[in-house]
Order: sequence, then C-alpha cells, then structure tokens
Amino acid sequence: LADAIQRLVQHLARLPGVGEKTAMRLAFHLVRGPKSYVSELARALLDVVEKVQLCSICTNVTEEDPCAVCADARREGSAICVVSSPSDVIAIDQGGHFRGKYHVLHGVLSPLEGIGPEDLRIAELLRRLEPAGVVEEVIIATAANVEGEATAMYLSRLVKPLGVKVSRIASGIPVGGELEYADQATIAKALGARTPM
Amino acid sequence: LADAIQRLVQHLARLPGVGEKTAMRLAFHLVRGPKSYVSELARALLDVVEKVQLCSICTNVTEEDPCAVCADARREGSAICVVSSPSDVIAIDQGGHFRGKYHVLHGVLSPLEGIGPEDLRIAELLRRLEPAGVVEEVIIATAANVEGEATAMYLSRLVKPLGVKVSRIASGIPVGGELEYADQATIAKALGARTPM
Repeated sequence: LADAIQRLVQHLARLPGVGEKTAMRLAFHLVRGPKSYVSELARALLDVVEKVQLCSICTNVTEEDPCAVCADARREGSAICVVSSPSDVIAIDQGGHFRGKYHVLHGVLSPLEGIGPEDLRIAELLRRLEPAGVVEEVIIATAANVEGEATAMYLSRLVKPLGVKVSRIASGIPVGGELEYADQATIAKALGARTPM
Repeated sequence: LADAIQRLVQHLARLPGVGEKTAMRLAFHLVRGPKSYVSELARALLDVVEKVQLCSICTNVTEEDPCAVCADARREGSAICVVSSPSDVIAIDQGGHFRGKYHVLHGVLSPLEGIGPEDLRIAELLRRLEPAGVVEEVIIATAANVEGEATAMYLSRLVKPLGVKVSRIASGIPVGGELEYADQATIAKALGARTPM
C-alpha cells in the first residue's frame, strides 16, 4: 500500500468512532474522488487550526474573541446555561427559547475515562460568577446520563455557596414520545418530576 | 457557529457514511484536539493528492507507476485477480495464497446507482489480455452480492471470447462458520457448489 495512503489511514483512524477498516474505506474514497475535494478538505482543516479559538469568556469555539453570543448585549447576562460541548449550544440556541449566555465545559466528569474537574472549563465558569449579583442563575444542561448528572451535582455544590441559583434542565418523556417506547429510567424521572395541572 | 468550522463540517459531511451530525461531532473533536494532529491530517490529505496515482497497468492506487505488484517479476503474469477496490487487493494479498497479478475495477456495476461498464476500469483489463496467450486465467473476486455477481457475469462474457479462462471465487459457509448462523442464500450456494470427498 502506498506510504501516503497508509499515513492518511493512520491519521483518520484517530478520529472518534473511526476504526482501521473505516479509515481505510475513507482513505480509498478520498483517493478515488476528485482531487479538488481532498485539497478543499485539507484547506478547511488548516483554516480551523489557524482561525478557530476558544472564547475567553464562555470557552465556546469561535473565530472572534469574545464570541458572537458573549458579545451580544441584547442577551441577558443574568443567566448562564452550562453545556458540555459546542454542539449543545447550537442545539439549544436553534430553538430560541433561551436568551441568556452559555458556558461550554468541553466534556463531562468521567472517572472511567480519567476526566476530572481540572480537565473541564470549570474555573472559567466560576470566574464569571464574580462579582456576585451579576449572574443570578446557572442552568446546568449536561446530558441526562450518569456522567451528565454527576457533573451537574459537582457544579451545583461549587456554585450554590456563591449565592447563585442553580437549576437543572428537566428530563422526562420527550414531546411527541410514546410512553410504551420510553425506558424505565425516563418514566421514573417523568413521574418524579410531575407537575400539578 | 464559526465560518471555518461550518466549512469543515460541510466538507466532512461529504465523506461516505458521515452525516451532518457525525460531521459536526468530528469537527468539534478536531477543534478541541491538539492543533498538531489537525495539521498532520491536512498534510496527509495533501500528500495523497500530490503523490497517489493509479497504476497504469492494474489501476490500483500507488505512489510509483507501475505499482509494486505489477513491477514484481516474481509474481505470475499468467493469472489476474479482478477486484472491485484497492482494499480487496490488500485483503487477498495478506493471505499470500495468490501469487499472480491484480486488476482493480474501482466499483461494481450498479444500475440503481447509475454505475455502468464505462465507469469501471474494464477497458484497461481487456487491454492486458492482449496479445493472447500471456494471461491464461482471469479470477473474478468481486463480492458475493447482486452487484458483484452481475459484474462477474458481465466480465465473463467479455473475457471468455478472447480465449482466456474465467473463474469466480467460491462462495459458501465461511471457515469456522456455524451452519445455524449462515443465511439461506449462503447455504444454497454451499450445497450447489458441494465437492466430492
């Protein structure tokens, strides 16, 4: 196999969810395809290396520092929604139901994967809560799984003593979801968090 | 979302088996990861564009023309094993059971996907069968599915009139495979191709 392809396979195999077989399939696809596309992909990668940085306030990925959300004076500075990744910011912001600011942790606590508090952007979050009174609420929107819950608990214990209200997004039956397809953990959550009608 | 990331997502989403969600996950992984890795991946892509070409004999991907297999005088020139992709050459050659040459079609006939004979490297294969007498056997090693079988039939009809023996790799129960897990089509093939003991 050509050295250049072998190197490309090795690099592609380091992507998440891409094993050696998939890397090889991708590499051959790239070799077969139009050279212009491969060059453009390489250019796009180099562009990201050159231009993309983390916002010094919310640590979201951005080309401008501070990012568009942090720089937007029309967004409420009193609420910060904490998420684990930049894609969560997109998911939440698309709905337009939240008009505050965000904070991106870049991960969740996971002892099994060796990810501890020092690996997440928690210090940056705490810095944003000073001086007291500006930020009134921290909404923790990590995933509703073990790591997400553990991260939420950990943050809550750090933030509450600072006199800031801490809330957690609700989990329950998805809108439009059938009960018969919901798992037991979700049903238990939905029952526990029932609201009076 | 930063323009540079958006462009990267668009380019990644054009890879086979990568949808928009996966492309976004990959892009954020690349943004978070070490910049050196992203640069290396870009470099590997550009390297492939610059260095990798198709062998003028067997149309396999290679950095040298002719490729190492075609240039290897110790390999028998009397047999050509026809495969659909470069990864098939690797799969077969790893075993070391075939000591002839290869020919890479770069696809299989698929009317549904609009892939006809002119899209495959068939003309290059036929050219290798002249002058008559040098190549004695063409072994068709396309996959044992509808497209692979159709491609084998099509090639067989072209090659046989040239006085060259055409054979097809056997399909049947995989070595070590349990009959109870084999599908009916495979069992039918295995019964039909039974050999006397």
